[in-house]
Amino acid sequence: MSFFNSRWVEAPASTRVLPDGGLPLGFRAAGVACGVKPGGALDLGLLVSDPPATTSAARFTRSGTLSAPVLLTKQRTQLGALRAVVVNSGNANAATGNRGLEDAAKMQGSAAIACGVAESAVAVASTGVIGVPLPMDAITRGTLAAAHELREDGEREFAAAIQTTDAFEKRASLEVALQAGTVRLSVQGKGAGMISPRFATLLVFVQTDAQLSAEECDLLLGVTVSRSFERISVDGQLSTSDTVLLMASGASDVAVQPETPDERTFGEALDAMLRQLALMVTRDGEGARRTARVLVRGDEPIVGPVARAVADSSLVKTALYGGDANWGRIIQAVGAALPGSAPLAVDIAIEGIQVCANGSYLAHDAAALKAAVQRDEVQYEIDLPGDGGVAELFFSDLGHEYVTINADYTT
Amino acid sequence: MSFFNSRWVEAPASTRVLPDGGLPLGFRAAGVACGVKPGGALDLGLLVSDPPATTSAARFTRSGTLSAPVLLTKQRTQLGALRAVVVNSGNANAATGNRGLEDAAKMQGSAAIACGVAESAVAVASTGVIGVPLPMDAITRGTLAAAHELREDGEREFAAAIQTTDAFEKRASLEVALQAGTVRLSVQGKGAGMISPRFATLLVFVQTDAQLSAEECDLLLGVTVSRSFERISVDGQLSTSDTVLLMASGASDVAVQPETPDERTFGEALDAMLRQLALMVTRDGEGARRTARVLVRGDEPIVGPVARAVADSSLVKTALYGGDANWGRIIQAVGAALPGSAPLAVDIAIEGIQVCANGSYLAHDAAALKAAVQRDEVQYEIDLPGDGGVAELFFSDLGHEYVTINADYTT
Repeated sequence: MSFFNSRWVEAPASTRVLPDGGLPLGFRAAGVACGVKPGGALDLGLLVSDPPATTSAARFTRSGTLSAPVLLTKQRTQLGALRAVVVNSGNANAATGNRGLEDAAKMQGSAAIACGVAESAVAVASTGVIGVPLPMDAITRGTLAAAHELREDGEREFAAAIQTTDAFEKRASLEVALQAGTVRLSVQGKGAGMISPRFATLLVFVQTDAQLSAEECDLLLGVTVSRSFERISVDGQLSTSDTVLLMASGASDVAVQPETPDERTFGEALDAMLRQLALMVTRDGEGARRTARVLVRGDEPIVGPVARAVADSSLVKTALYGGDANWGRIIQAVGAALPGSAPLAVDIAIEGIQVCANGSYLAHDAAALKAAVQRDEVQYEIDLPGDGGVAELFFSDLGHEYVTINADYTT
Repeated sequence: MSFFNSRWVEAPASTRVLPDGGLPLGFRAAGVACGVKPGGALDLGLLVSDPPATTSAARFTRSGTLSAPVLLTKQRTQLGALRAVVVNSGNANAATGNRGLEDAAKMQGSAAIACGVAESAVAVASTGVIGVPLPMDAITRGTLAAAHELREDGEREFAAAIQTTDAFEKRASLEVALQAGTVRLSVQGKGAGMISPRFATLLVFVQTDAQLSAEECDLLLGVTVSRSFERISVDGQLSTSDTVLLMASGASDVAVQPETPDERTFGEALDAMLRQLALMVTRDGEGARRTARVLVRGDEPIVGPVARAVADSSLVKTALYGGDANWGRIIQAVGAALPGSAPLAVDIAIEGIQVCANGSYLAHDAAALKAAVQRDEVQYEIDLPGDGGVAELFFSDLGHEYVTINADYTT
């Protein structure tokens, strides 16, 4: 299956997917098993950019209960000049107090020594169970072991080492043809549950060998995250640990300058890659069977809450799972998001079939609708009073597999 | 099983549960099958208070997509002088436009004629599928048939006729000993899904033969609803149709005067009855296995959002279902409700066992905790910075039965 496989993401013409993967020039990565996860699964990832002039940008969860690695990375690194990332899965190092902060600092220190970079250039991330101290001996041994395994094509192991309940891998390598030359873009991500539209509730690491200023990294990452990871919801749950990093090694010697056609082309490639990865997270959705897109148009202040209410509605999500055209649950979610506004003139279309006009049912082809909602991707369009505002969210269904995964996934 | 069977509701000393049921003096009720539900199930209920001086009060959902019967009852009745209620299940008469309003008006008219009361004294309620016109011939025939079946002990059939996905009946009859004499209180309710803490997302009809002014009805209903149906969540979904009615026939000749001991005694009985009924709705919770109570203490503005975030978290709810002491999901939900507040000093106790202090894990008796979270009722206590605010919510788990019910319950 090709990386760009959703009708909701267009593969940019300038972009070529590299079927065998590979990191951009300047980067090396590794993933090892250090014993945090049971059964010898890969659980520690290390990624380094060798050029000292590497630039970067980051986005983090806005949770009030941030994990120790997020607190540390925000406070004790230079976010525009990161050169290495050390990540473990199986334990989030969250709700672990001062000991957790000390453990995150130890991870940062070990990775800095192992990679030969300054501590302030090392980002730390952890994902997994909350409220359990990290097994630091294992983590330190794993970090040193990973440093010996660093390879230019090590992103497959790195991507595997950062995953938790993910059902499939989430990574891609692209070539982007710019006027100034060809650059590479690659991404490795994890995420399936605890995914909410308020931010990129997952770990995502993006690399390029284009030359970008730190400001340009930050600008591009901000715009593309707002169109990808901020627009997905598996279960409306905001994580303690979400981290998205973009690193640019500059090793291709191809510079992307602000306000040029190359900036637009590069931005389109990054945008498509992150939207597709966000859709992969939504599809994984801890057992999800179907993915939906909701598009809400109307007054600017109301479109966002309505889209979120629909995407997070357990009734809409179970109907999506059941392949059920129960649009009454969509109008229920719309009404819940706008208390006191009755009677509300709302139009609803599912897969282009209008089922509700001005708040009332509309005769429609029920057989065609039933067939449409049983496909893998289902689109809901909602029109509210007013205009000028548009909100888009991608979300997954709620089914037995989600319950099984989350009722049995124990501390 | 006694009606008062939760440790979270104390049966008032002045109250006696009537094991054989029965309506207060002055009331008659009936439930018939008119053909809205398949298979001959009861689906139309009628309730009337014969004394012309009957007083009443009502509360409704705040949804922006109100059902036709809610719009009609709010706009075209005297809410302080209701004498009859006509209810159908199997079809919510919501998202049905002008035809829906006309149909609700026809239901009101038929019931008024059949019961011999003014149209403005008839409340209308409908519950079931959204977006499908009512079969009015069946409804009208059913209303007339129900009028012939009205009985002083007809509340069992009435209660059955208003239910949809409910797994068990929700009704009670109490005797309350006041200084001025003994009065009766009875209640019939329905509700299992589409239940949110924002309001009484269900249908509940309360009767008493005490003499109460309409103002007193409104005051008592407002206070007791805010402590019962506004504090429960099955799935965080606000319905289009929620209606709670209190009717006082006065037929006992026992007057409840404002600011007297009898008012307090009567209020306590009503409060306990509605809290217990709200807990029954939570327990029913479309397949729920366990019920939880979350109690949040701290600054007034933050306790409410935190309680709701915990109660509506699909991760907390699946852990509750699994009997899993995964308190990391509780701290995750707390952090999600208070973005930007990290690091947050939060304490968490489950069934009195403290697991988190000042935002960090606390060593505890894991075996005792594991046993505690596998009981039918689980209590979470959360202490946040500040004081003066307390928020309480009851909620149900999220399990396979909820998915089965909601993925298969088709339009």
